[in-house]
Amino acid sequence: MQISMHAMSHGVFKKALSQLLHVMDKGAANAKARNFDVSVLVNSRLAPDMLPFARQIQLTSDFAKNSMARLAAVDPPKFEDFETTMDELVARVKKTLDYIDSIPADAVAGSETRDIKIALRDRTLEFKGLEFLQLWALPNFFFHHVTAYNLLRHNGVDIGKRDFLGR
Amino acid sequence: MQISMHAMSHGVFKKALSQLLHVMDKGAANAKARNFDVSVLVNSRLAPDMLPFARQIQLTSDFAKNSMARLAAVDPPKFEDFETTMDELVARVKKTLDYIDSIPADAVAGSETRDIKIALRDRTLEFKGLEFLQLWALPNFFFHHVTAYNLLRHNGVDIGKRDFLGR
Repeated sequence: MQISMHAMSHGVFKKALSQLLHVMDKGAANAKARNFDVSVLVNSRLAPDMLPFARQIQLTSDFAKNSMARLAAVDPPKFEDFETTMDELVARVKKTLDYIDSIPADAVAGSETRDIKIALRDRTLEFKGLEFLQLWALPNFFFHHVTAYNLLRHNGVDIGKRDFLGR
Repeated sequence: MQISMHAMSHGVFKKALSQLLHVMDKGAANAKARNFDVSVLVNSRLAPDMLPFARQIQLTSDFAKNSMARLAAVDPPKFEDFETTMDELVARVKKTLDYIDSIPADAVAGSETRDIKIALRDRTLEFKGLEFLQLWALPNFFFHHVTAYNLLRHNGVDIGKRDFLGR
């Protein structure tokens, strides 16, 4: 395997999402072992004006899904943010893995020079594909992924960096 | 600029470390405005058995520095972990930026197939350079970077994702 836009997007997201599933499993098991409802974790926040765990997972999913779609120049499927339970969030992450696996590496080839526009509430960001991956897709993905991990860790779930990284 | 091992390591670390400096500045200013000693932030933790902010910054620095060195097949300089104040931590991040800027892109070219070994306490990890970047360097770097951000955010510092991402 050589370096490519696909290797540096799909290759990063796939492993990280698999580890996220593992960490979520440990969160659910921990709630059971400590005899509290796992919805406490799902609704937990690191600060009153931060997004709760459920939204962190949905956004981790969205940054993987939408980034792969944009690099492949296809419209990303819309995943409705209906999840309110850990099981539903696990299914969301699995659906995200299926989607990113469905994008052929060929479709992402050469995307480093592709023009990518991101419409925000108040402005539109314009990137070349390489910059999009370096400064938008990867940082945003890890921002929400690590925050989800930190939420569980903060709440006493028995996870460590090896659970986050794998192997 | 085309995709390369240098673009996907240096190009990610440089922007992220610059934003980290910005976030640290806001942390220091916030402590001043709320009239508490910034060392409270420097020593804060998200859980009693997690590393404090100072160590999160040192590790963010180490993963950028050591990863660039390994990809360039040179010995990384050892940065002693002596920092106990926000000013010293800011200097550490600036020193890290200087170091990663000192590695020529040419030295990293072709590192995707380089053998890289990481000695841990209890075992040695072996990677090809591409895998090292995908599964070790980037996830570890963001793990500590986002945790440092979350520590400030949890403690009420007025930062948001735009401070983390920049632009």
